Amino acid sequence: MKMTAGQIATIIEGRIDGDTERQVVGPAKIEEANKHHISFLANLKYEEYAYQNQPGILIVSDDFEAKKPLDTTLIRVESVYLSVQKLLKMFAAERVHDGRVDASAQLHQDVQIGEHVSIGAYTVIDQNVILGEGVNIHPHVHIAQNVKIGPRTTIHSGVRIYPDTVIGSDCIIHSNSVIGSDGFGFAKNEEGFFDKIEHIGNVVIGDHVEIGANTTIDRAVMGSTIIGSYVKLDNLIQIAHNVEIGESTAIASQTGIAGSTKIGAHCLIGGQVAIIGHIRIADGVQLAAKTGVAQNITKPHSKWAGSPAVPSTQFIRSHLMLHKLKALWTDVSKIKKQLKTK
Amino acid sequence: MKMTAGQIATIIEGRIDGDTERQVVGPAKIEEANKHHISFLANLKYEEYAYQNQPGILIVSDDFEAKKPLDTTLIRVESVYLSVQKLLKMFAAERVHDGRVDASAQLHQDVQIGEHVSIGAYTVIDQNVILGEGVNIHPHVHIAQNVKIGPRTTIHSGVRIYPDTVIGSDCIIHSNSVIGSDGFGFAKNEEGFFDKIEHIGNVVIGDHVEIGANTTIDRAVMGSTIIGSYVKLDNLIQIAHNVEIGESTAIASQTGIAGSTKIGAHCLIGGQVAIIGHIRIADGVQLAAKTGVAQNITKPHSKWAGSPAVPSTQFIRSHLMLHKLKALWTDVSKIKKQLKTK
Amino acid sequence: MKMTAGQIATIIEGRIDGDTERQVVGPAKIEEANKHHISFLANLKYEEYAYQNQPGILIVSDDFEAKKPLDTTLIRVESVYLSVQKLLKMFAAERVHDGRVDASAQLHQDVQIGEHVSIGAYTVIDQNVILGEGVNIHPHVHIAQNVKIGPRTTIHSGVRIYPDTVIGSDCIIHSNSVIGSDGFGFAKNEEGFFDKIEHIGNVVIGDHVEIGANTTIDRAVMGSTIIGSYVKLDNLIQIAHNVEIGESTAIASQTGIAGSTKIGAHCLIGGQVAIIGHIRIADGVQLAAKTGVAQNITKPHSKWAGSPAVPSTQFIRSHLMLHKLKALWTDVSKIKKQLKTK
Repeated sequence: MKMTAGQIATIIEGRIDGDTERQVVGPAKIEEANKHHISFLANLKYEEYAYQNQPGILIVSDDFEAKKPLDTTLIRVESVYLSVQKLLKMFAAERVHDGRVDASAQLHQDVQIGEHVSIGAYTVIDQNVILGEGVNIHPHVHIAQNVKIGPRTTIHSGVRIYPDTVIGSDCIIHSNSVIGSDGFGFAKNEEGFFDKIEHIGNVVIGDHVEIGANTTIDRAVMGSTIIGSYVKLDNLIQIAHNVEIGESTAIASQTGIAGSTKIGAHCLIGGQVAIIGHIRIADGVQLAAKTGVAQNITKPHSKWAGSPAVPSTQFIRSHLMLHKLKALWTDVSKIKKQLKTK
Repeated sequence: MKMTAGQIATIIEGRIDGDTERQVVGPAKIEEANKHHISFLANLKYEEYAYQNQPGILIVSDDFEAKKPLDTTLIRVESVYLSVQKLLKMFAAERVHDGRVDASAQLHQDVQIGEHVSIGAYTVIDQNVILGEGVNIHPHVHIAQNVKIGPRTTIHSGVRIYPDTVIGSDCIIHSNSVIGSDGFGFAKNEEGFFDKIEHIGNVVIGDHVEIGANTTIDRAVMGSTIIGSYVKLDNLIQIAHNVEIGESTAIASQTGIAGSTKIGAHCLIGGQVAIIGHIRIADGVQLAAKTGVAQNITKPHSKWAGSPAVPSTQFIRSHLMLHKLKALWTDVSKIKKQLKTK
Repeated sequence: MKMTAGQIATIIEGRIDGDTERQVVGPAKIEEANKHHISFLANLKYEEYAYQNQPGILIVSDDFEAKKPLDTTLIRVESVYLSVQKLLKMFAAERVHDGRVDASAQLHQDVQIGEHVSIGAYTVIDQNVILGEGVNIHPHVHIAQNVKIGPRTTIHSGVRIYPDTVIGSDCIIHSNSVIGSDGFGFAKNEEGFFDKIEHIGNVVIGDHVEIGANTTIDRAVMGSTIIGSYVKLDNLIQIAHNVEIGESTAIASQTGIAGSTKIGAHCLIGGQVAIIGHIRIADGVQLAAKTGVAQNITKPHSKWAGSPAVPSTQFIRSHLMLHKLKALWTDVSKIKKQLKTK
């Protein structure tokens, strides 16, 4: 997408210092930019790269003064960081979909589709599915019966959505994630083998939720597994049956939450955390990477680490002590000797 | 699926107390039920919801006595829990497949198919594959050459099955799992780079096995990676090349088992467990979530926790001690002072 | 693939002792071989199986002397192990692709394809994609716009490649892996909700890289997430945005590396390791399974374990001490008693 300095300056509300007609093809980091790119100087520690690489357009702060010659159109702004985010959103918008249903997509005759919906090649959509306006579904997606997807939600290639799932508006679900698979529930029968516990519940996902690649969210036994609005889930996360996650909680990669646990709102959960089933985590709780939680956490905004989890401050203290044990052991040996000699 | 109280009572062998013709559309938890649902009271702590929500039909125990008015058809049974499981299986059976091969499925001419096999849209099946009677394959599945799948097994959307895999009867494999990919085996060559070790073995899965979503099971270098009958694997599990898992063992989400390890029968393995390669775990062993096993576990039915794993009782004791270290440290300091003053 | 002893001996440079025309259908472990197989004796501890199973052809070392009757053609070689690897590569080569583009594959008109490229059924390839000669793409793959894939690379079924990804030559990517999904980056806005940080960078993968099943590699915010040549990634691994991994590093299953971290060359990283974001790991570092790294590791070829990570020797010592704590506690209690009695 070619754009001129003038067009960009209008969008990011900056002032041009140089050639308004200067054209670029896209953004690049200052270390990698050349004359075909727009770049930015948010941190003056990278200033030397500007002189070295001479980007076509450069976003700088209002008070920037070049120390060496620059064959560059400057766009001066108040906050370089905020302007760059606006710029990135604009270039990302390039990927907005075309509202076209591919001829090879296989839609059941009962499917209801809003306006400007895109459906990619070989995607399969079963009966009674409802897609809101502006929904964008990539190739090779399977959406099973009775699923509802809200306006402007994007479903990337290879996502699998089991029956009865409800997804809100403005969500993004990345490739190969699985929503609504049966939970892990079995009961030993009289012969000592496992009988499957049927799962007839579903998954309900709020608005503005983003779900990473290869993440799995299981349906409830009965009722719903619930992902609140504005929740952000990274890649390869496991959410078990009947879990509930409060609004605006963010969870990093490879974390697992066992069945029926309720996580509060605005929690920050690190990577590879394990949370046992049937407990509650209060609002705003922070869990360090690799934390193992086996009990309720009732204190809002508390911070935890370790497995089993302890308050973060205690975790650090205990681990410092652990590595002083050798010295302690030596001390006690000496004392024992000294007392015996008496 | 609309059903009457009479029809349901016949199936769960209960006695009707109320209108035999009362109709419902499906089951719901008592907290969420309304007059269109059948619900149940397995635990009297939820009794108040029955009066509040007035479900269309309510399964109760033989001796239940309503304390407030109920506009509900009661079905009285001996064990509410067992009746509910029967009920759920019945509603789940609604999803049974129609024995139809979608016109868009691409089957090699050599594929052998039993009676009443369903194959979903865009599924691809390569040469010499054999599918037993009643097999149900969802859309977008790829089954490579020489794979055998036993009667009544269900393969969900997006599953990938590499060549030579053998799957037994009555199994369920959830979406986007990968069965039979090459194991992680490399040998450093003279220049210090890795050469791939070819994997010409396969994966063999027994009967009544359930495998969760996005789980991976690698093929053997030679011979077979073996998953015993009645094994239950949760989501996002890693089973490496040449692993063997004994009958009726259950493994929770995100656990990984490294190459050539042999797990016994009837083990219960928690989430995010790691088991090193080339070891043996005895029958009936239980591993807590996040356990790291680096040595053989030879004692059947023993319980382990921690990383490196120790017996569960020792794990708890050591962790209690760990957090008392500060006190111990203070004691020793005092003693040292006292002894010096003498 | 039927082969005679004579054909095999030529390929593995061995000497035949027996019938040159003896035919087999493929290799098998000595414990499982029969007269239709070629097998090998790399370790004499398995010798008894040779007499028991009588494989059609048996690879043995130059100085092997049978202790019991063998109805077998022997092939004598200098190194049994190296010969077996040659043999396996030969049988694996059987699976080489046929250079056929399936009629159902959907290729954008702008796609550029080298010679002898195979593309499987229902694979979708978007505009401006470039595929080098000999590339082998299995069914149900989605390759988005502007992706480049180098010569002889194999992409297994169900892989998802997001726009702008660059993959080198001679790579193997296993099923359902996702390359180039958006990184996990959000900024809290004024209302306390997360705004998405747009990711307009890409993923760049070197030559001779192997990536396991269901692994995820996120694109950079700007610039590139970089996987060096000869890197080997196992299944279910998470590589976050802007990570860089040096040449010939191997990483075992279920490990996660957080954003912007730089891993050196020739590192060996165990399973379920977590590495925090924005740090550096030196060349040749070894991390035990389940290690949690929260700081830079600057010493090349050092070995680490535990979470938080400590040098491996210290980890073992501390854990030995941990389980002696009870004894230490008892000692200190005795000393306290003794001192008080004075």
